[in-house]
Amino acid sequence: MNQKRWRQLTERPLIVVSLVFLIAYAWLVIANLQPPASDVAVSLILVSWLVFIADYAIKVSIEPPGRRIRWVTTHLFDLAILLVPVLQPVRMLRGVLQRNAGAAIRLRILAYAGAAAVLLLFVASLTVLSAERGQPHADITTFWQSLWWAFETVTTVGYGDEIPATAVGRAIAVVLMVGGVTLLGVITATFASWIVSQVGQAEEEATATVGHLRALEARIESLEQLLREALDDRMTTRR
Amino acid sequence: MNQKRWRQLTERPLIVVSLVFLIAYAWLVIANLQPPASDVAVSLILVSWLVFIADYAIKVSIEPPGRRIRWVTTHLFDLAILLVPVLQPVRMLRGVLQRNAGAAIRLRILAYAGAAAVLLLFVASLTVLSAERGQPHADITTFWQSLWWAFETVTTVGYGDEIPATAVGRAIAVVLMVGGVTLLGVITATFASWIVSQVGQAEEEATATVGHLRALEARIESLEQLLREALDDRMTTRR
Amino acid sequence: MNQKRWRQLTERPLIVVSLVFLIAYAWLVIANLQPPASDVAVSLILVSWLVFIADYAIKVSIEPPGRRIRWVTTHLFDLAILLVPVLQPVRMLRGVLQRNAGAAIRLRILAYAGAAAVLLLFVASLTVLSAERGQPHADITTFWQSLWWAFETVTTVGYGDEIPATAVGRAIAVVLMVGGVTLLGVITATFASWIVSQVGQAEEEATATVGHLRALEARIESLEQLLREALDDRMTTRR
Amino acid sequence: MNQKRWRQLTERPLIVVSLVFLIAYAWLVIANLQPPASDVAVSLILVSWLVFIADYAIKVSIEPPGRRIRWVTTHLFDLAILLVPVLQPVRMLRGVLQRNAGAAIRLRILAYAGAAAVLLLFVASLTVLSAERGQPHADITTFWQSLWWAFETVTTVGYGDEIPATAVGRAIAVVLMVGGVTLLGVITATFASWIVSQVGQAEEEATATVGHLRALEARIESLEQLLREALDDRMTTRR
Repeated sequence: MNQKRWRQLTERPLIVVSLVFLIAYAWLVIANLQPPASDVAVSLILVSWLVFIADYAIKVSIEPPGRRIRWVTTHLFDLAILLVPVLQPVRMLRGVLQRNAGAAIRLRILAYAGAAAVLLLFVASLTVLSAERGQPHADITTFWQSLWWAFETVTTVGYGDEIPATAVGRAIAVVLMVGGVTLLGVITATFASWIVSQVGQAEEEATATVGHLRALEARIESLEQLLREALDDRMTTRR
Repeated sequence: MNQKRWRQLTERPLIVVSLVFLIAYAWLVIANLQPPASDVAVSLILVSWLVFIADYAIKVSIEPPGRRIRWVTTHLFDLAILLVPVLQPVRMLRGVLQRNAGAAIRLRILAYAGAAAVLLLFVASLTVLSAERGQPHADITTFWQSLWWAFETVTTVGYGDEIPATAVGRAIAVVLMVGGVTLLGVITATFASWIVSQVGQAEEEATATVGHLRALEARIESLEQLLREALDDRMTTRR
Repeated sequence: MNQKRWRQLTERPLIVVSLVFLIAYAWLVIANLQPPASDVAVSLILVSWLVFIADYAIKVSIEPPGRRIRWVTTHLFDLAILLVPVLQPVRMLRGVLQRNAGAAIRLRILAYAGAAAVLLLFVASLTVLSAERGQPHADITTFWQSLWWAFETVTTVGYGDEIPATAVGRAIAVVLMVGGVTLLGVITATFASWIVSQVGQAEEEATATVGHLRALEARIESLEQLLREALDDRMTTRR
Repeated sequence: MNQKRWRQLTERPLIVVSLVFLIAYAWLVIANLQPPASDVAVSLILVSWLVFIADYAIKVSIEPPGRRIRWVTTHLFDLAILLVPVLQPVRMLRGVLQRNAGAAIRLRILAYAGAAAVLLLFVASLTVLSAERGQPHADITTFWQSLWWAFETVTTVGYGDEIPATAVGRAIAVVLMVGGVTLLGVITATFASWIVSQVGQAEEEATATVGHLRALEARIESLEQLLREALDDRMTTRR
């Protein structure tokens, strides 16, 4: 058993578990569950987390004992989503962004960025809501307020009608802001690439391609052949 | 009669009807018409809508019975502008963005983005105004306030002096924010493409073009011809 | 006398007059001059404006009578800066953005965008200040407040601590917002072009250049010459 | 001793001194030190500053007397970080952004932009805090508030919950806004360059490369050789 094989085996089950985790967390936060009703959601969250911990422990144990510390330090992302399990649904995004030719790659990048944005908005709304709701003078007390705040933050509009007041809320806000700026960069870049290629198409036809060079090469080859025959022919004649 | 023919026949009349719809809706909302004065505007809106429904019904009936459901599921945009007729003026934008060489394409993209922005701002202002006006404590009660709010939202400035409070208003705000980010992306990308081509022009002249390769090819062809003549000539001489 | 010659003759004097106009206007607005002290500034503004009107009248009269209306409709920018003389300093920007090879063009574009931004910020601050100051409950009553507001608007930060309340103020705000978005686009695009060229430099060396093709061409030419000599030589020998 | 040698010798020690300066300044501002406790921090700041002045004086004295004024006017950045020593840590950024091929250069640019952003945010937060704290009705009175304000400004979100009121605070805000816009440009541009190269990879393989041209050249060369032999051979035969 090696890392790659283990990842292949566990990829799909772990996506399901991370979805269970996200749904249980969303239910707990949005419905503002109180005990004893909240016990089911909390249990689901804890069980999912145990599964993530077990997966991580197995991955570490797969490595030979001498290289385990090295594996942990070179796989910090695995450690991060273990400690902040709300990031687990990021697993769903993996594998979406694979190399692909032409227009298809741009659609994939936009789809990936869109999916990442939706996930970021949803998880940030949930986390900020659970952090802010309990505070006195909190602006954000319902999921819709939290989602509205997340949208105006990620697009860098920032009306300022709702502002997180807790340290956790502000840390998530910073992540959303940086995410918004990056997202904006990706969208802009994808359009830029598309426009450049549209404009370039006409000029492209005027650029040298291997096809033209191959044709040239073939021509020279036939010319060489002709010459060789001419020489052979003369040699034969003269003798 | 097929879809393409029907579209060609109805394109212009439907643009006129969608303009009538937009003007009637704008008149109703901006002038805040009350009955009985509002009856004319409402009638125009309903008649326009009936025209859109008739157009959609005919398009569905043109398809052979077995493929109608498939047509509906593959033409969701037609369904969307049927259900949200305020999107009908989008018809005016169709056909603007056609392929074109060199600088012209960039001007077309900017013109298209500009027209889309004006339409988005106008329709969003109207819809938010009609959604917010009736609310107690509403920030947005006149068309100018609504338009001002739309501008600061679409450019992501977001002063926060006027903020929609209703669910409909906030949903439109989200569309405006996302539209603003995308618009910004298109403008940036168009400038990027232009600057890259300006910078590239000097270097471009140093790049291989088909013209140069053609000249080369012609040269090799004449060389081949010369050789062929030389060989033929010798063959003849020798016999 | 034709348009081109007239423009060459008047370009520099008009830049000086537009500077006088801008300084007089800035002095009038920033120092909030009251009569009789304001008379000097107002006189300077009116005299400058008369110069602009005279320049425009002469340009129209240079055209043959039959083409004057056509000239006016195809030179709307000249008409615009005649009617809104605060735009006159734009003359200073003309001619800065000229084609230039390599890195130089990017620096020129950044310099041009920077100069346009400074001018836009300065003129917008002055105009908004003069529009807002007289209003009751005005946020913007000093030049520093106006400049601060202009900066947070053009960068799309938009804190919302100071907001224009008059129609003129808001119209200028919209110009600043759109200018900010465009400026952001130009800056981004210039960096994009620079990064693309940095990344491309290594790959560039692997691309076909005219130099290589010329060398090839020369080679084929000498080959052709050799063949021609060989044929001539044989012809001579045989006769 | 020349400038280059001096820079090489002092580069590392000066980075250490600028770090000492930054830490002492941060300690003074964040902990809001009062005398006599603040004396240590102030002493460290003054000593660091003396080191910077000494370094500058030596650099000037290295130049021959006649060229000293010219050196000062062509090295305004050195003068700027002498007068505003809080910019000294910029030294740490120097040398990060060096030319490098392929993907590596994009990572370097992002790393450089990220490091510059962190430094800008940290220094701006400290300076704004020390400028605002003493004011009546100040919004920004703790380091966390200042850092939160810096984040929402640099990403152009601008909620407007905390706004600098002093001239110094607003000047720094303008630097942060412009920095934010530029940073956004760099991030966007880096993604654009990456997406363009991803999309281009498939098309790239169809473009003419020097490799192909070299093969062509070699072919023509061998052809020429063959011809030359043929001619020499005939000459020999005929005599």
